Amino acid sequence: MKNISLLGATGSIGTQTLDIIRQHPGEFKLVALAVGRNLELARKIVSEFKPEFVAVQDKSSADTLKAEYPGVQFGFSEEGLIEAAVYAKSDILVNAVLGSVGLSPTLAAIEAKKTIAIANKETLVTAGHIVIEAAKRNQVALLPVDSEHSAIFQALQGEKYENIERLILTASGGSFRDRSRADLEKVTVQEALNHPNWSMGAKITIDSATMMNKGLEVIEAHWLFSIPFEKIDVLLHKESIIHSMVEFHDSSMIAQLGTPDMRVPIQYALTYPDRLPLPGANRLNLAEIGKLHFSEMDFERFRCLHYAYEAGKAGGALPAVLNAANEAAVAAFLDGKITFLKIEDLIEKAISAHKNIVNPDLEAIQEADKEARRLVESLV
Amino acid sequence: MKNISLLGATGSIGTQTLDIIRQHPGEFKLVALAVGRNLELARKIVSEFKPEFVAVQDKSSADTLKAEYPGVQFGFSEEGLIEAAVYAKSDILVNAVLGSVGLSPTLAAIEAKKTIAIANKETLVTAGHIVIEAAKRNQVALLPVDSEHSAIFQALQGEKYENIERLILTASGGSFRDRSRADLEKVTVQEALNHPNWSMGAKITIDSATMMNKGLEVIEAHWLFSIPFEKIDVLLHKESIIHSMVEFHDSSMIAQLGTPDMRVPIQYALTYPDRLPLPGANRLNLAEIGKLHFSEMDFERFRCLHYAYEAGKAGGALPAVLNAANEAAVAAFLDGKITFLKIEDLIEKAISAHKNIVNPDLEAIQEADKEARRLVESLV
Repeated sequence: MKNISLLGATGSIGTQTLDIIRQHPGEFKLVALAVGRNLELARKIVSEFKPEFVAVQDKSSADTLKAEYPGVQFGFSEEGLIEAAVYAKSDILVNAVLGSVGLSPTLAAIEAKKTIAIANKETLVTAGHIVIEAAKRNQVALLPVDSEHSAIFQALQGEKYENIERLILTASGGSFRDRSRADLEKVTVQEALNHPNWSMGAKITIDSATMMNKGLEVIEAHWLFSIPFEKIDVLLHKESIIHSMVEFHDSSMIAQLGTPDMRVPIQYALTYPDRLPLPGANRLNLAEIGKLHFSEMDFERFRCLHYAYEAGKAGGALPAVLNAANEAAVAAFLDGKITFLKIEDLIEKAISAHKNIVNPDLEAIQEADKEARRLVESLV
Repeated sequence: MKNISLLGATGSIGTQTLDIIRQHPGEFKLVALAVGRNLELARKIVSEFKPEFVAVQDKSSADTLKAEYPGVQFGFSEEGLIEAAVYAKSDILVNAVLGSVGLSPTLAAIEAKKTIAIANKETLVTAGHIVIEAAKRNQVALLPVDSEHSAIFQALQGEKYENIERLILTASGGSFRDRSRADLEKVTVQEALNHPNWSMGAKITIDSATMMNKGLEVIEAHWLFSIPFEKIDVLLHKESIIHSMVEFHDSSMIAQLGTPDMRVPIQYALTYPDRLPLPGANRLNLAEIGKLHFSEMDFERFRCLHYAYEAGKAGGALPAVLNAANEAAVAAFLDGKITFLKIEDLIEKAISAHKNIVNPDLEAIQEADKEARRLVESLV
């Protein structure tokens, strides 16, 4: 039996994690969780899973729920999030919160020697050097939850990392994969939110359309697998069936495939290094699909991806700047304040304006993050 | 340093094995080998690799070479083959001889506790139950050399076999993949020998065209991975880029991919569980290839595959009958004595005529083999 702490329980990854816990009551127990503003859903989760500790966003929500569930402990704000992450009885932290708020609970859980199933992109993108150093020092496993990184992680089982020639992240191309750059000038928010393969939150769907999502994944892959950026490729593969692959120095490639179902990588992180059956999984039938398509990534059309490689290679606080500028710009696009292509312009401006620092600490990263947001907001 | 015994050194797999040994002089040493009738090539190999023991086909060839290479020991006939297989200094036997003559050296090497890299199909097809039992008893690893089985073996690294849902062997479709059954009535030997993806010997190229090659591979996969026939599928994939794959019970699939280059699986068997760089490998570029195609196998058009599943499921000596009847029928086709579709008719007749036996010993298998050949030859 593995005891689980789940941060971001009411989000897309969170609810799918709960689905897996529900399917395997003999294997997993939810002992602690953190939720966002959706108290209605939080009540349902608490009633069903009977966790011991629940973190909510603010004190008044904590007080409200405490009155309703006297047997459950409640916490709130960042402190509550960290309490949930390091909950004593928990074996594994599933960190599925959105945004840079995910970083400090991950670091606290690493110091508490919890296994980390990581779905929070910002943790590795903004502070990869700090997180990886802490994980190594504490001999804590960082298990990817993203389908691409899980694919690579699965492909690497039984293999030596030193034999890796290349990691190949596949990219569906997002909502605008068939549009020319000229077309992108006038696309709407609604069009951008219409992802062809995956049903996800708004921010990540826009990031898929700009290809920034893939850029952030490249940076994460660099840290997760200790691979230089020169050995990480992105390949357009519109069906999203091959979730990513590894080429070894003997030219052999190992790929992980499946239908687009986030429960597979989530469950793999929870069952690793074993697997469990996934009830109700939609099995892949390649004969029915008939064809898989592949093409080169166009770095001219997808400038965000180019910026991500540049920021990743430069290191320091630049990936945090990239990420913060992107968050602010995407928020402005979703609010209808800027056009789609303006997102990449603003990111480029934030990157150019940043004076990079070597080996920044958390404070310096947070400062760079804030500065980038301020700059983008001033330009919207 | 691994010392290698190589049986079938002058054949296609044999010469590619030598190429790998040549590329990695610090890793591998050829200590013993067996050659066929090509003494000219045998001389070149002996001069270059300086083995300690060489088996040839007959006594006169052995005497001839002994005079030329006084420092080398020579053997001949089946006894020589076995001597090479169990050569004391050898760590690993690469068995790449063609035909049922490959069986007894494999069994002898297993009893001598050598690791076995197996490229000889007949070993597992005709006597899988005996070979696997011996390998388990002696705790000897059987490493596949075939690209399909190597793909599955690579995909299974770090995985538990009990989590396997399905093995999916890919099939290029052979020389006649785009022909209708009616077209197959009048195809020529020359057309059959023109394989679209792989350059191989005549027998295996015809077996690819009839799909018997895939049928034999299904039986081999059954024994190598201890998987029931119901869990082994065949998928048409004309590019031969995905060499085969494994589906696990969580619906995740792991595939091994590459350009068609037999040196990759041969080298993997030699370096297992590690990998080494493969100089001069033609690396896979999926963007350049653009599309991968998949379709259902047509068991009506490819009756040999159907017969192979039936023989495999029935067990006993029936797979040996299938294999012997196929060898005799393909030889008759290559000699211009029968038409292409007559191959499957003859196999069907041999299978129908056989009275199956449970758990046959080697003698019973050899008897069934001979009987099937006699029957086919009488019908040609």
